[in-house]
Amino acid sequence: MIIEKNIIPFVDKWEEAGTFPAHRIFKILGQAGFLGINKPIEYGGLGLDFSYNIAVAEELGNIPCGGIPMAIGVQSDMATPALARFGSDELRRQFLVPTIAGDMVACLGISEIGAGSDVANIETKAVKNGDDYIINGGKMWITNGCQADWMCLLANTGDGPVKKSKSLICLPMKLPGIHIAKKIDKLGMRSSDTAQIFFEDVRVPRKYLIGEEGMGFTYQMLQFQEERLWSVAATLAPMQNIIQETIEYARQRKIFGQSVLRNQTVHFRLAELETEIELVRSLLYRCVAQYIQGNDATKLASMAKLKAGRLVRDVADSCLQFWGGMGFTNEVLVSRLYRDMRLMSIGGGADEVMLSIICKYMGTLPGNK
Amino acid sequence: MIIEKNIIPFVDKWEEAGTFPAHRIFKILGQAGFLGINKPIEYGGLGLDFSYNIAVAEELGNIPCGGIPMAIGVQSDMATPALARFGSDELRRQFLVPTIAGDMVACLGISEIGAGSDVANIETKAVKNGDDYIINGGKMWITNGCQADWMCLLANTGDGPVKKSKSLICLPMKLPGIHIAKKIDKLGMRSSDTAQIFFEDVRVPRKYLIGEEGMGFTYQMLQFQEERLWSVAATLAPMQNIIQETIEYARQRKIFGQSVLRNQTVHFRLAELETEIELVRSLLYRCVAQYIQGNDATKLASMAKLKAGRLVRDVADSCLQFWGGMGFTNEVLVSRLYRDMRLMSIGGGADEVMLSIICKYMGTLPGNK
Amino acid sequence: MIIEKNIIPFVDKWEEAGTFPAHRIFKILGQAGFLGINKPIEYGGLGLDFSYNIAVAEELGNIPCGGIPMAIGVQSDMATPALARFGSDELRRQFLVPTIAGDMVACLGISEIGAGSDVANIETKAVKNGDDYIINGGKMWITNGCQADWMCLLANTGDGPVKKSKSLICLPMKLPGIHIAKKIDKLGMRSSDTAQIFFEDVRVPRKYLIGEEGMGFTYQMLQFQEERLWSVAATLAPMQNIIQETIEYARQRKIFGQSVLRNQTVHFRLAELETEIELVRSLLYRCVAQYIQGNDATKLASMAKLKAGRLVRDVADSCLQFWGGMGFTNEVLVSRLYRDMRLMSIGGGADEVMLSIICKYMGTLPGNK
Amino acid sequence: MIIEKNIIPFVDKWEEAGTFPAHRIFKILGQAGFLGINKPIEYGGLGLDFSYNIAVAEELGNIPCGGIPMAIGVQSDMATPALARFGSDELRRQFLVPTIAGDMVACLGISEIGAGSDVANIETKAVKNGDDYIINGGKMWITNGCQADWMCLLANTGDGPVKKSKSLICLPMKLPGIHIAKKIDKLGMRSSDTAQIFFEDVRVPRKYLIGEEGMGFTYQMLQFQEERLWSVAATLAPMQNIIQETIEYARQRKIFGQSVLRNQTVHFRLAELETEIELVRSLLYRCVAQYIQGNDATKLASMAKLKAGRLVRDVADSCLQFWGGMGFTNEVLVSRLYRDMRLMSIGGGADEVMLSIICKYMGTLPGNK
Repeated sequence: MIIEKNIIPFVDKWEEAGTFPAHRIFKILGQAGFLGINKPIEYGGLGLDFSYNIAVAEELGNIPCGGIPMAIGVQSDMATPALARFGSDELRRQFLVPTIAGDMVACLGISEIGAGSDVANIETKAVKNGDDYIINGGKMWITNGCQADWMCLLANTGDGPVKKSKSLICLPMKLPGIHIAKKIDKLGMRSSDTAQIFFEDVRVPRKYLIGEEGMGFTYQMLQFQEERLWSVAATLAPMQNIIQETIEYARQRKIFGQSVLRNQTVHFRLAELETEIELVRSLLYRCVAQYIQGNDATKLASMAKLKAGRLVRDVADSCLQFWGGMGFTNEVLVSRLYRDMRLMSIGGGADEVMLSIICKYMGTLPGNK
Repeated sequence: MIIEKNIIPFVDKWEEAGTFPAHRIFKILGQAGFLGINKPIEYGGLGLDFSYNIAVAEELGNIPCGGIPMAIGVQSDMATPALARFGSDELRRQFLVPTIAGDMVACLGISEIGAGSDVANIETKAVKNGDDYIINGGKMWITNGCQADWMCLLANTGDGPVKKSKSLICLPMKLPGIHIAKKIDKLGMRSSDTAQIFFEDVRVPRKYLIGEEGMGFTYQMLQFQEERLWSVAATLAPMQNIIQETIEYARQRKIFGQSVLRNQTVHFRLAELETEIELVRSLLYRCVAQYIQGNDATKLASMAKLKAGRLVRDVADSCLQFWGGMGFTNEVLVSRLYRDMRLMSIGGGADEVMLSIICKYMGTLPGNK
Repeated sequence: MIIEKNIIPFVDKWEEAGTFPAHRIFKILGQAGFLGINKPIEYGGLGLDFSYNIAVAEELGNIPCGGIPMAIGVQSDMATPALARFGSDELRRQFLVPTIAGDMVACLGISEIGAGSDVANIETKAVKNGDDYIINGGKMWITNGCQADWMCLLANTGDGPVKKSKSLICLPMKLPGIHIAKKIDKLGMRSSDTAQIFFEDVRVPRKYLIGEEGMGFTYQMLQFQEERLWSVAATLAPMQNIIQETIEYARQRKIFGQSVLRNQTVHFRLAELETEIELVRSLLYRCVAQYIQGNDATKLASMAKLKAGRLVRDVADSCLQFWGGMGFTNEVLVSRLYRDMRLMSIGGGADEVMLSIICKYMGTLPGNK
Repeated sequence: MIIEKNIIPFVDKWEEAGTFPAHRIFKILGQAGFLGINKPIEYGGLGLDFSYNIAVAEELGNIPCGGIPMAIGVQSDMATPALARFGSDELRRQFLVPTIAGDMVACLGISEIGAGSDVANIETKAVKNGDDYIINGGKMWITNGCQADWMCLLANTGDGPVKKSKSLICLPMKLPGIHIAKKIDKLGMRSSDTAQIFFEDVRVPRKYLIGEEGMGFTYQMLQFQEERLWSVAATLAPMQNIIQETIEYARQRKIFGQSVLRNQTVHFRLAELETEIELVRSLLYRCVAQYIQGNDATKLASMAKLKAGRLVRDVADSCLQFWGGMGFTNEVLVSRLYRDMRLMSIGGGADEVMLSIICKYMGTLPGNK
């Protein structure tokens, strides 16, 4: 399988390097069809429903780090759903086709310095100028940002209410005025590069607009659904894998005259964690089933994201403990995931954002009635 | 609806009385078909699949106490599955038909004083004597025990391994030698009577044996699956109802110049609890779907039972806090459920038993491999 | 000892009755000196420092219920500190001396229906009328309220800022216009009576004012310090006692072929709880030491109250689990304390109020700079 | 101050390098008297009581990483207490004097590959041979191990019961047969070097034995008390510092139109953490007071270690969340401490070892009575 052959053997090296060869790897994945599972066949996708993306996300979770799956997920399920759904035929031929094929690397430009999870308050502007937009501002926490060929950019194209003032634009990353300010030195997800990027009078054709002008916030909220469900799916294998590795290690590691696993606090704790994993899996599948039937999955998807983010941290932390000193070294998967998976409660909408969304649906947020 | 008319208006009175008129209520429920949802049509059941039992259990959860639903559940889904599945035609005509019709009240006799959750270590004996068994021993924590017409009794019919030495027997409760030692004074579930019962040379025909002799432990383990899934389903409505009542109360209760609900710790906490409820619901539905397709649901059902038991306590406790002093009175549902639902982690197999079962399936219990 | 002889044997009866003979018991305690430990000798007190009150509170915690200690604490450390410190000599002779002697029963009138923990928003008014105040309004959650001879009442004596508009008044409870609306039916603390009380044109001499008019809020905030420290001290013995009883029970209760105590999750959990108890004890002692040296103990006392309230619930809940079915009966201390101690996070300033106070001292409350 | 001038400015560089110049830094600290606070004056110590070590440990916690304080603590309070207390005059002149002066770097050799926290099961042997011991075996997780001049080594000098078979020996690290197998690549504590070391027929004079032969386990258990109390003290400042930094950051960071700090879940959570810190501080001070009065502090010290280890992880994790994306970078203290402080529940006796010790004192460990 591709993962076993082309990815897993190189992960340690890429983690060390703080980046990975996105173009080469995405080309391989693209040829195998992994980058356009539910994308239309006419643009090179497989035309399957979203449950297959989830199955692939689960499989990618077997890569022994968080960074590479995340980078792939950005390409396949975070930066491209809106383009695939709302983009013009021309735009899709220009950006979606090569992205699905793995010839272009995509990134998603939503977060800004003062607005990580707070999408409504971005400040980057795209001002109309003849047939172009002129873009000024900057983006932060951009996965794949150092290598990307194009960005799905969210920018203000007007004033007024949030649901009318923002637009998504396909932004080629080689244009004059785009500065990769730095590669951010992260706690984890080290094999994936994360950029801070500035825009200074960047000129881009107006036809690179995705769908209708002013609809960007709405499109992004839709696009977030797939991002979040994908993220939840991608945590399942890491959780199960470290539990399984911990069981094996605890079975052979002896302390105080018996195997660590024989300690009731160890096997009971692992059973509690396994229980929580099955809970998340059940909610994910139920939510995906609703989503592919065309229902609004926002509430359940936000719940799944919230829970998965908290659980994966708990699994990593609890398992690490059972490895004793070994858990505190960089030689074991559990300590890598302890770092990598801390992001799950922050990225893609922090836990607190998920809680706010859930409250909104429950009608309990101040301002709701 | 039956519940609104025949049950809900009387709950407070029954809670006060420490019991409820099981014969009268079960007759009403039986006539409406609620006591044999998935039981064979030829014995008066509706012949539906188990997912309908779950739907009814969810509905029963709207009764504003834990005791009455539990008493009904014992009748419909805890004391009768083995009889329905493995009993002889004669035995089913004698005990199952009137139980489904609501003419007889059933109870389940598994727990003993020294073996609450530890079914393998029961000591009650049924010794063959001609065409009879002679039964000695006692049972503890018997729901409906003060009113029951018959008990689905687990007793030792031999020595040897647990899976060969125990049997399930239909035991009429009016026989000589059966002593209802006392009605237990419980922390909660007060509308449901719970008995301690002794057997002194109780003589019962051997044809009252359910299925094969020696298979009782196996039958009971199967019967437990429906009990546990039923219990999980029956906690969903109580949790949602107290959350909903808490939202309404917190919305109007003012403190420090604003409604309690406006406090972020309140609405965020309620969102976390709602998230956990949806997780349990998802696991329940997934597990029931597997079960009705004929799969072994033991692992997932044990997980659902473990989680539901812990969660319902958490929901009751967290919500109670937001009621302030009112939460500490006996005038509100939340404080009743705070008491009633404490049982969920103890009865029907305590949390620790669920954890052991899960460990067994994970292969991590000492003694496994 | 008094407790062993005059109180413990009667607790079950009083719990059943929903009240206890406060006058008779307080007289016994008063004669023994327990009601005025740190009160001035000239008014019948022992003139010791407050650390002795804490020692007595710890001892009272050995009474096997929460209600009786609480009722005593109201008399000795909650309703009387302000009177002892700020009352006129005449007022102290009239109310403090008989209260310390046990000839009068005192209660504390702070909470109101719409202002449980929110002292600043009380609505009861005391309007000057000649040499009298005329009082209108009502109080809620009044411990000892059905039996009290006088109440330390907080009422609005003016408008304006909270620190200038409220006063403490000694209010004899037999006056015309005082209506005991009802004895509240509580979840726990059942041996202690709790009243809702209304005032309708109650006329009380102005000389019954404690200290200066308008200083009531400030006095009460001071008085709360002793109440909260006392409450923390009174939870220590209950926690240790149920842990000790649980150890004994778990040692002899056998399940799955070994004593419950041998389960690592049981003895480790008890060790965690014991650890938390020692933490609370350490903070309490450190705080009391600071307090008797004249320092502001508000921050640490609020922390101790917050933690003790949460911990005692955790101890009761965790221990109850290890009793299995027995824990769900009304025959064991642990289930009584499970109900009684739920109050600790609500009464005397709810957890959320404690958190707000701590935030205020940390400078993190909105409104704080 | 020394820390501000000689340490803090270089921490980032040392973290990067994975080590720090122990000899140079310890010389500076030694000249200032920091390495022998409670050591006898005749060997260069200050002769103060242990509460001053605690004060210094608290101060060292202000160094913005966990590794350097830990390395200093090994020198001052972990590798030397037994030598100071039980070593011969000659041995103390040879090893203690230069260690206190900062002329020698010390390390502590207890843990082994198969016996991290399980001191009783070490396998390293010191076999008598004339006037020498010949040492074979290995040690793991040795802080300062790559730079140390001598090790306080625990080795088996006989068979038989654990309290008679082990000895502490001063082992010069430049001897033939000592192999520094590797510097371990750790999750955190990166400025401190950690070694795996093998001994192959290492010959050391028998007069390097500390105290009596066979008493090593007992000495080490005593020595552990100071190590554990020191560790607890050294976590206080890190916890307070990241809370303080988080308050400042959250005050200025705006999200959804208001400062992060204004969110109730943020300031309440910080208040809860601050409460827990004061609890730990209170227990630490109470325990130290008992210890310097000559009492056995094992139970309380183990409790403090257990709690501090769990709390510091909780503080780091909770605060990190409030930094959003910034928390996931290596540019902020909170993310460094999130990594570094994970060790607290593993090193110096893991949480599970602390729990076992507490259980032993509670009489609840299987095998106890």
